[in-house]
Amino acid sequence: MKNIPVILMGCGGVGSQLLQHIVSCRTLHANKGVRLRVVGVGDSKSFLVARDALSMEFNDTFLMDICRIKSDGLSLQTCIDSGKCEAFPYPESRRKLIDLAARLAFALVDCSASSETIEVINQTVNLGCCAVLANKKPLTSSMEEFDKLFLQPRRVRHESTVGAGLPVIASLNRILSSGDTIYRIIGSLSGTLGYVMSEVEDGKPFSEVVKAAKGLGYTEPDPRDDLSGMDVARKGLILARLLGHRMDMSRIKIESLYPEKMGPNAMPLEDFLVNGLPLLDNDIKERIKKASSNGNVLRYVCVIENSRCNVGIQELPKESALGRLRGSDNVVEIYSRCYKEQPLVIQGAGAGNDTTAAGVLADILDLQDLFP
Amino acid sequence: MKNIPVILMGCGGVGSQLLQHIVSCRTLHANKGVRLRVVGVGDSKSFLVARDALSMEFNDTFLMDICRIKSDGLSLQTCIDSGKCEAFPYPESRRKLIDLAARLAFALVDCSASSETIEVINQTVNLGCCAVLANKKPLTSSMEEFDKLFLQPRRVRHESTVGAGLPVIASLNRILSSGDTIYRIIGSLSGTLGYVMSEVEDGKPFSEVVKAAKGLGYTEPDPRDDLSGMDVARKGLILARLLGHRMDMSRIKIESLYPEKMGPNAMPLEDFLVNGLPLLDNDIKERIKKASSNGNVLRYVCVIENSRCNVGIQELPKESALGRLRGSDNVVEIYSRCYKEQPLVIQGAGAGNDTTAAGVLADILDLQDLFP
Repeated sequence: MKNIPVILMGCGGVGSQLLQHIVSCRTLHANKGVRLRVVGVGDSKSFLVARDALSMEFNDTFLMDICRIKSDGLSLQTCIDSGKCEAFPYPESRRKLIDLAARLAFALVDCSASSETIEVINQTVNLGCCAVLANKKPLTSSMEEFDKLFLQPRRVRHESTVGAGLPVIASLNRILSSGDTIYRIIGSLSGTLGYVMSEVEDGKPFSEVVKAAKGLGYTEPDPRDDLSGMDVARKGLILARLLGHRMDMSRIKIESLYPEKMGPNAMPLEDFLVNGLPLLDNDIKERIKKASSNGNVLRYVCVIENSRCNVGIQELPKESALGRLRGSDNVVEIYSRCYKEQPLVIQGAGAGNDTTAAGVLADILDLQDLFP
Repeated sequence: MKNIPVILMGCGGVGSQLLQHIVSCRTLHANKGVRLRVVGVGDSKSFLVARDALSMEFNDTFLMDICRIKSDGLSLQTCIDSGKCEAFPYPESRRKLIDLAARLAFALVDCSASSETIEVINQTVNLGCCAVLANKKPLTSSMEEFDKLFLQPRRVRHESTVGAGLPVIASLNRILSSGDTIYRIIGSLSGTLGYVMSEVEDGKPFSEVVKAAKGLGYTEPDPRDDLSGMDVARKGLILARLLGHRMDMSRIKIESLYPEKMGPNAMPLEDFLVNGLPLLDNDIKERIKKASSNGNVLRYVCVIENSRCNVGIQELPKESALGRLRGSDNVVEIYSRCYKEQPLVIQGAGAGNDTTAAGVLADILDLQDLFP
């Protein structure tokens, strides 16, 4: 039986879902000859490590307790069972992780949304550990950090940073290692903006659609976090760097769906929703009309081509995979030597804790050949 | 630098393309720290092995010579250079491969279309080698052989057996290892039949479309090899077994697009093309009309659901990924817990030596963690 020690950073949301998946897949994985041994779990405040991580692990009851505590909005500290684990406050936890990495090769899983994890990921990977990221931040900081991380490319996986569990990164890596040349990637990488663009296409005012999306929980609490395009740009940057383009966020042209004067620093949320948003309706309506007169539709996309990455609204043929997109699915079209006239298309749910955690779990399993 | 010794069975078509890809990707792979060392190449008649396979390999000039000889329709025997390699006639070559496998772990690549390779693949994998298959035969014989082959599942890859280089198998394996439950797979897995079905939809007679497809080189020399549905059924069986369904070809319900009395044993090819085919036009036309009156289209698909695998024409919604399919692209829709209402869709060119060989090469690279 192969043993993969797992340490999880960020145990709310996706992280909790991952722990549940790990528990419910025990038999499945045992049949494949693999056992995931969770030896550490951390949130932003503290970090729990099994008392003897080299031989002990958290049992399933304890893992489910952690999930319960996090779903109740409580801190991990509530969960400390001194018989089972030691607890370390942040940032002492970092030192503990590095110490452990020197004695045990583990898979360090980052389901947080923090940029504070970069250093510990780099250090543990250098010490022989593997990293699995759902967190985009470690991949979107400086090129220098990115290069450091990918010194050992086989030991770093990050499927769930783009399109949640959709096999976008795995497929791109396959295409790249086969020597196929990728000319162009175009994708709708935000379920929220995909939903918004297909609803306004049906004639609904932009402001109404955004407010409805917020009501349905499709947007961040402040929908400007989605409408700014920053999240899509981060995904675009990850894809562009994967293709070998050495660029930073500053190189990406990003179209925000609201003007700067309506930004979070200039206008309170309530004011934006009531007074700001409706002022944007007409412009979007006109653009849709213009696109429609060309037989096209508008989509909020990320385009990577000729070493450039642009993020914003584009007019696209109604009959393309992107043009036909409805609702909150993600779509990625890849044009390459092998997929020249018709692209390789990958489409499906690109958000949600369940599918994001599934992508993380598949990444962990895919590391199994690197563990004894 | 990681070293992966490669032995290729079947060096025409896809196999030749693979050798060319290997040569042209040398720098790319070296940058990733991997070197593919081709130490043996075989066709149906003979088998060439590097004189000292443990340390020597075929150089790029020799590999290109092999490609040239095969594209001229000649046998490998023309290529023997006694300074560089030893030649073994079939079936003595089998024993040589097993001998070598006992001393050297290599990736055995099967780009042949033969069922004769099954035994040597099983034996070499048991001895610690890896196998990469574009050949469907080893995966579609008895369940017993299939089980034997997958005793070491990580050492066997076969992306290019379904949808050529499209990341169908890799994606399914990821979904399965994440514990997601797959309810249903429906796919258009034959570029030829995809082309035929979308052309007849435009009102062209079935017989004309098949003859045009044959003229364009889209079909096998005898188009009944495509129209029988056997090739799609083989792909369906591979997918069904991957999902854990223990079944043989005999369990698959296959709809042939010609009646038995027009089969290769009952009617010569010329007779079929001139007199047989046109008799089938009316039936197809009527079915299309009926489907169209329901707002549907006809597609030749493989459906795996409830432990059953059916292959044949189905009425499908015009607006589904399958319904919108045009030309010779393959499409696979996967419905699972994570992709419940809207499926995960993978679409793109599913045939051609270039993309098939690219899928094989990506499989070989993905084995790198198993090599020292």
